[in-house]
Amino acid sequence: MRGGAGVAQRHPDTAATPAGLTTGGLPDREAGAVLGQYLREEATAFLRALAPREGEPGRPQEDTADTGRQMRRSARRIAGTLHTFGSLTDPGWADPLRGELGWLTDTLGREHRYAARLGRLIGALQRLASAEDTAGIPAAPVPADDDLGLWLPVPPAPDPAAPAAPAEAPEPVTAAALAAGTRRSPAPPQAGERGAGSGPLAVGAARAGALLERQLTLARTRAHSAALQAMGSSRFHAVVDAVAVLASEVPLSPAARKPAATVLPLLAEQAHARLTEAAAALPLTRARHPYNGETLHAALTGELPAERQDAAWNRVRVLLRLRRYAQEVLAYDDGESAARLAAAARVLEQHREAAEAAAAVTAAARTPRIAPATAYALGVLHADQRLEAEAARYAFAHLWTR
Amino acid sequence: MRGGAGVAQRHPDTAATPAGLTTGGLPDREAGAVLGQYLREEATAFLRALAPREGEPGRPQEDTADTGRQMRRSARRIAGTLHTFGSLTDPGWADPLRGELGWLTDTLGREHRYAARLGRLIGALQRLASAEDTAGIPAAPVPADDDLGLWLPVPPAPDPAAPAAPAEAPEPVTAAALAAGTRRSPAPPQAGERGAGSGPLAVGAARAGALLERQLTLARTRAHSAALQAMGSSRFHAVVDAVAVLASEVPLSPAARKPAATVLPLLAEQAHARLTEAAAALPLTRARHPYNGETLHAALTGELPAERQDAAWNRVRVLLRLRRYAQEVLAYDDGESAARLAAAARVLEQHREAAEAAAAVTAAARTPRIAPATAYALGVLHADQRLEAEAARYAFAHLWTR
Repeated sequence: MRGGAGVAQRHPDTAATPAGLTTGGLPDREAGAVLGQYLREEATAFLRALAPREGEPGRPQEDTADTGRQMRRSARRIAGTLHTFGSLTDPGWADPLRGELGWLTDTLGREHRYAARLGRLIGALQRLASAEDTAGIPAAPVPADDDLGLWLPVPPAPDPAAPAAPAEAPEPVTAAALAAGTRRSPAPPQAGERGAGSGPLAVGAARAGALLERQLTLARTRAHSAALQAMGSSRFHAVVDAVAVLASEVPLSPAARKPAATVLPLLAEQAHARLTEAAAALPLTRARHPYNGETLHAALTGELPAERQDAAWNRVRVLLRLRRYAQEVLAYDDGESAARLAAAARVLEQHREAAEAAAAVTAAARTPRIAPATAYALGVLHADQRLEAEAARYAFAHLWTR
Repeated sequence: MRGGAGVAQRHPDTAATPAGLTTGGLPDREAGAVLGQYLREEATAFLRALAPREGEPGRPQEDTADTGRQMRRSARRIAGTLHTFGSLTDPGWADPLRGELGWLTDTLGREHRYAARLGRLIGALQRLASAEDTAGIPAAPVPADDDLGLWLPVPPAPDPAAPAAPAEAPEPVTAAALAAGTRRSPAPPQAGERGAGSGPLAVGAARAGALLERQLTLARTRAHSAALQAMGSSRFHAVVDAVAVLASEVPLSPAARKPAATVLPLLAEQAHARLTEAAAALPLTRARHPYNGETLHAALTGELPAERQDAAWNRVRVLLRLRRYAQEVLAYDDGESAARLAAAARVLEQHREAAEAAAAVTAAARTPRIAPATAYALGVLHADQRLEAEAARYAFAHLWTR
């Protein structure tokens, strides 16, 4: 295996740079040799993930998903490395490849993302609509507000303005479902059990689940078709050809002849600086304070303010990824720092998924002619997912500034 | 002033009991004398709050609210003290008075609570529907998900399952408003400014605000009428007569002849023990963890699980109040402990208000024939208020267990 040489070069007695990046393992090779080795390894992994698929066109979908994951993993690493260490490669070749790899990972990753989003939202609905009392509090008698001592259970004061029995019309088949020719899917089982949590709220949760399932399954199916179509396109084959070139010989620039220990840590430091700068611009002080309500602010105006907020966090997520790939190129795992970066990356990934799920819920709420109970459940679900995003920011702020 | 003697008795060199309650200021008086002095002072305050009102029946509503607040404040203290130190008073006289004072504070406090609830919910809607971007993040270009470096602003991927233009029917006048004969109130100004946050979500927020305003204003008006009616009733005058007896002479039991320093701290300790026991039964470990999602759990099943949870916290709130009144009877402010108890009481009051506001939102969502956008906004608002309740639990857990 090609990777063996890289492992042998890792020295324990390495000098750490101020940012935690290390110059270890780069004694006296050219920068291009170290970079080329990393890129060749990832290109080989990319082609290996692709190879069995071409031999078996009729494989089940699950394997395709796995193939896609492996391909995306390597494509992200190649594109990220070409970005961070761009000055060491032939720009006329690297820049277009980088763009094409971005197209490929986006196209191939969409199906997976819709599936994950649906799973996340159905899980959240189950939690929100589960009647099981997890608090484990004994059912103490409820004191009336100003009754200081009788401790008798008191029925809640009737609200004169709230009618007890809501008159609700059955939810019609949505236009989106009609347009797609899909039939209405049955309510998901968790909320369909009317005995557990009955009443209009539980019905709304069941319908919201069915609506989301319909919409996200449709989106997923379309993404699947788009991915299959992309993989049959000449554009895709051009990318594969370019990666195949990479697997045998990396087109380098003259700067790649300099010593690895001089050039690579410097470029990795720049990636680190971009990350720390972007993270410092985040409202981390606010995020460190729990229940700051930031992600729910302006939740009812449409998504522009939320999207602008989320974008800054997303930018840090991508820069963090670049920073991690740079560390992989330097072939040194300094333990604590890498674990912290990995944890931060996971948290920011959660942030992205929750924010995108919340947006999908808002989109579902815009479906014409849904029942009020369905819309209400979607509103609760939207807030729940924004809260998950806020919790991720809180976790990131504590990871990053500790 | 009668209170002068009590102040002079407060000694700095008092011995604190294990629970932080002190036996200071109780050198060699009878328990009944100390208890009677506190009750007489509160009874006098109660009657003083009532007195001007009887002279001026045509005063503006604002003053009535203030009168009510003063009366409720004293009535709570009298009832609480009769509960904690019940063994020192004539039970045949104290127990019925306690119940009647509970009825009175509840009846007189309702109008205020509806007004506060409306203010809280409209404020929350303003926050949720304000388009102003408070995050202060510069509008950085949004990276596409897997585009690792081009940093061009990318329009969000269109969701094939979500139609762009929602077809929404105008919201009909609600049955509740019709039944009450009230006309539909205009949308509140904060959300009526369509320029700030347009689109169906902002419209939904405006309508949700109008709906809540209608329902809670109606409830408030009814509570106001009920309070006026109560204050003209013979039942009310009987309570006032009983309090007038208290202002001149407290009916004591034989046990009240024992030394104050022996009896009162013991009874106050029992109030403290009931509080600590109830607080220990709360899921504080879970509450200490931010974003635990507990208050939103089962948000879509109806309110039974939430109400059971809230009841345990409400019980601690009432016991905390009893504990504070007991400390007032002992006439000793030990600084840190009292400040901590006051902070905990404020936080639990926030918990109650948020939980009750969330329930009012759910009730409003059950209004028949509301528009989906309105129901969606109510769902977001419900979750927001449950989150406020969760934040209050978090704050209490940190106050209580630090």
